[in-house]
Amino acid sequence: MVDAAVANVCGSDAIKANLRRSWGMLSADIESTGLMLMGNLFALRPDTKSYFTRLGDVQKGKGNSKLRGHAITLTYALNNFVDSLDDPSRLKCVVEKFAVNHINRKISAEAFGAINEPMKETLKARMGSYYSDECAAAWAALVAVVQAAL
Amino acid sequence: MVDAAVANVCGSDAIKANLRRSWGMLSADIESTGLMLMGNLFALRPDTKSYFTRLGDVQKGKGNSKLRGHAITLTYALNNFVDSLDDPSRLKCVVEKFAVNHINRKISAEAFGAINEPMKETLKARMGSYYSDECAAAWAALVAVVQAAL
Repeated sequence: MVDAAVANVCGSDAIKANLRRSWGMLSADIESTGLMLMGNLFALRPDTKSYFTRLGDVQKGKGNSKLRGHAITLTYALNNFVDSLDDPSRLKCVVEKFAVNHINRKISAEAFGAINEPMKETLKARMGSYYSDECAAAWAALVAVVQAAL
Repeated sequence: MVDAAVANVCGSDAIKANLRRSWGMLSADIESTGLMLMGNLFALRPDTKSYFTRLGDVQKGKGNSKLRGHAITLTYALNNFVDSLDDPSRLKCVVEKFAVNHINRKISAEAFGAINEPMKETLKARMGSYYSDECAAAWAALVAVVQAAL
C-alpha cells in the first residue's frame, strides 16, 4: 500500500515538479510556513486539536514554544520528503519513520487527511497567482503516502 | 538549564562557525552522513543498541529501511539545529521538540552523550584535514543543549 502511493508520486514528473516548485515558495520562510499550516489546521479542523494536547494553548501561535518547535520540525520533514522524490525507497523509509510517531499518537490515515485543506490554504497564501489545484493535488498525493504508512 | 546550554552555543561565534563549516561538509551527502553516524554509534557504543530495538538488525546498514529512515531524519534534525543558531528561542524550541521522542524512549542525558565520540569520528571522516578538536567540541556543545532538554 505504501509502495503504490510512493510509486504514484515518484513516478509522476508533473507531481514532482509541482511539489518542488511549491516547496521553493513554502521554504522561503520555513518557520512561518509551518506555523501557518498548523494555524490553518486548527482553524479549519478544530477537532484535530485533540491530537495536540501536549502543545498546550495552540491559539498562542509562535508564542507557544511547543507549537513553534512542532511547526518548524514539521517543515523539515516536508523538506526531507521533497528531497527524496527521485528515490522511491528513500521516500518510503523517511515517510515510514515519520509515521511512527503518528502511529504512537494513534492518528489514523483518515484523521491525518485533515491536513489537506489546511495545506491547500497554505499553498494559496504562499503561492498567490502561482497557485493551482494541481499543486494542491500533488501535496495530497504526498499526504497519501503518509496515510498509507499509518 | 536548557537556556544556559543554548546561550553557550548561540553566544559563541567560534562554536557557530565550527558548526556551520562542518555542517557544510556533513550535509554534502545527508544520507551517508546519517548512516555513518549511526554506524559509528553502534560500533563504538554497542550498548546503545538497546535503545533501537524498533529498528531491527542495525548491522544491515542502509539495507535496513528503518535504520535508513532514522538516519536520514536525524540529519534533517541536525540541519534544523544549525539553521537555528542565530535565534536562541528557535534553537531551544526545536531541540525541546527533538527531546520529546527521546524522553518517551527513556533516553537520559547521560545516555544521549554516547553520540559524542561517534560524531567526532564522523567529523574526522567527512572533514579530513579540515577536522579540528574545536569542531568536535562545537558539536558536543550542541549535543549538550539536547542533553539539557532530556
